[in-house]
Amino acid sequence: MRDFSADHRWLSINTATVRKQGDLLQIIEACDRHGIRAISPWRDQVATVGLDAAVRAVRGADLQLSGYCRGGMFPADAAHRAEMRDDNRRAVDEAAALGAVCLVLVVGGLPQYSRPGSAPSKDLAGARAQVEDGIAELLDCARNAGMPLAIEPLHPMYAADRACVNTMTQALDICDRLDPDRSGALGVAVDAYHVWWDPDLQAQIRRAGKERLLAFHVCDWLVPTTDLLLDRGMMGDGVIDLPQMRGWVEDCGFAGYSEVEIFSANTWWERPMDEVLSTCIERHRSVV
Amino acid sequence: MRDFSADHRWLSINTATVRKQGDLLQIIEACDRHGIRAISPWRDQVATVGLDAAVRAVRGADLQLSGYCRGGMFPADAAHRAEMRDDNRRAVDEAAALGAVCLVLVVGGLPQYSRPGSAPSKDLAGARAQVEDGIAELLDCARNAGMPLAIEPLHPMYAADRACVNTMTQALDICDRLDPDRSGALGVAVDAYHVWWDPDLQAQIRRAGKERLLAFHVCDWLVPTTDLLLDRGMMGDGVIDLPQMRGWVEDCGFAGYSEVEIFSANTWWERPMDEVLSTCIERHRSVV
Repeated sequence: MRDFSADHRWLSINTATVRKQGDLLQIIEACDRHGIRAISPWRDQVATVGLDAAVRAVRGADLQLSGYCRGGMFPADAAHRAEMRDDNRRAVDEAAALGAVCLVLVVGGLPQYSRPGSAPSKDLAGARAQVEDGIAELLDCARNAGMPLAIEPLHPMYAADRACVNTMTQALDICDRLDPDRSGALGVAVDAYHVWWDPDLQAQIRRAGKERLLAFHVCDWLVPTTDLLLDRGMMGDGVIDLPQMRGWVEDCGFAGYSEVEIFSANTWWERPMDEVLSTCIERHRSVV
Repeated sequence: MRDFSADHRWLSINTATVRKQGDLLQIIEACDRHGIRAISPWRDQVATVGLDAAVRAVRGADLQLSGYCRGGMFPADAAHRAEMRDDNRRAVDEAAALGAVCLVLVVGGLPQYSRPGSAPSKDLAGARAQVEDGIAELLDCARNAGMPLAIEPLHPMYAADRACVNTMTQALDICDRLDPDRSGALGVAVDAYHVWWDPDLQAQIRRAGKERLLAFHVCDWLVPTTDLLLDRGMMGDGVIDLPQMRGWVEDCGFAGYSEVEIFSANTWWERPMDEVLSTCIERHRSVV
């Protein structure tokens, strides 16, 4: 396992972590100031400053992209399927323009939440089938662009509205079916917040192996958690054994960035950007 | 699948559903008024009115108990282990005195939350081992009392603080190890709220089979859910396909009560008890 205590060369900042404190260009400047070498930006943040400006800023700061957030939201009724396809193809193109390591897929839940306006449904198995079809179709486009797709299993509390792929097992079953040769074109993003509870996690990380471990995200699970979406904790403030999980991932050969992704309406989004980044660096070195 | 549309003979009320509106004796009177034949009371509600008075009231109203809530909270540090054992043995005795069909086990999470005062830990695998040891020990006592134990897998969002058994698979693995003969002394409580998201649910219900399906709980998952604990929905108001799940359970031979268990601080706990019970009856007949 790599020693993170001496520096933060393997720290990446998911830009949602400081989304309330500044736009993407300001976040890139701040990362540059703090010697942070990698980020993972969100599409809406890129759109706000413009793709060309974002590309220039990323190159200017010599930043790497540990991922690009996000494609997905595949379940849709017939009337919203074309929109879904176009949207995902644009996400692949943007990720390629920015030079991201992978496009992260948050696959979507029931169609009425995944693509608002879609007819309401309670058919979770049907949504899961649509997700697999959607990934299969996008994979052709992503292969052509040389952009790996990283399926991110989300915590089961998001099964209805954000992602109906909720375990590593499910995500890897999809990978096995759509990319049986383990080409590297399809893999998973392991986010500690979503998978830490899974009794099968270590075994599934091993099953994924180096070819399919495309991203590793960290934050912490707080007790109590006061909001299902916006109360993630800073690493070290919760109950997740992060070094253990990083050990499992690195034992399989993962050698990429440890990406901090914290949505925290009442704590970290309220603090100055420099304080948040300094805290991320300190915790990255001490508790990840 | 049984037809629930004509009456509510298979409806049970978990008494937490109206815990803010009255004490256990008042709840029993209200159930009697509404022709409800079964309840599942909580230990604190029994303690408030006294065990003897609770037993008399249950018999007086000719009520059946679809379960008794709850034993469990097994993880504890060494200083709290004796307390945990005594507490669980008393739960078995109370369940037997009340004539419950089973004692529901909410197994506990990390020791500092399961048994407050225990030394903090992030060792989830260790907590899971303690759960299995605790159930094994309690099972001897429960067999002697003729009281089946129903392990309730809780939603993964409760893994840290309430239950580190989070899937049917986990619960049934424990059953296989501790009661390989499927004697009926150990099984599971299937609560729709906790397991609806699980892609393996139907297969695991089949695996459980009639001998291990000891209880079936219903409510609904709301989108958005505003509180991790106290924002459960009335059946029909959320996204769970309840008839499908009841079909799966009954296909395996389950023929017991459909128990309504709703913790709802801002909606159902604010309404008059009779309105809540009438709504439960109406929804039981129309959407369960």
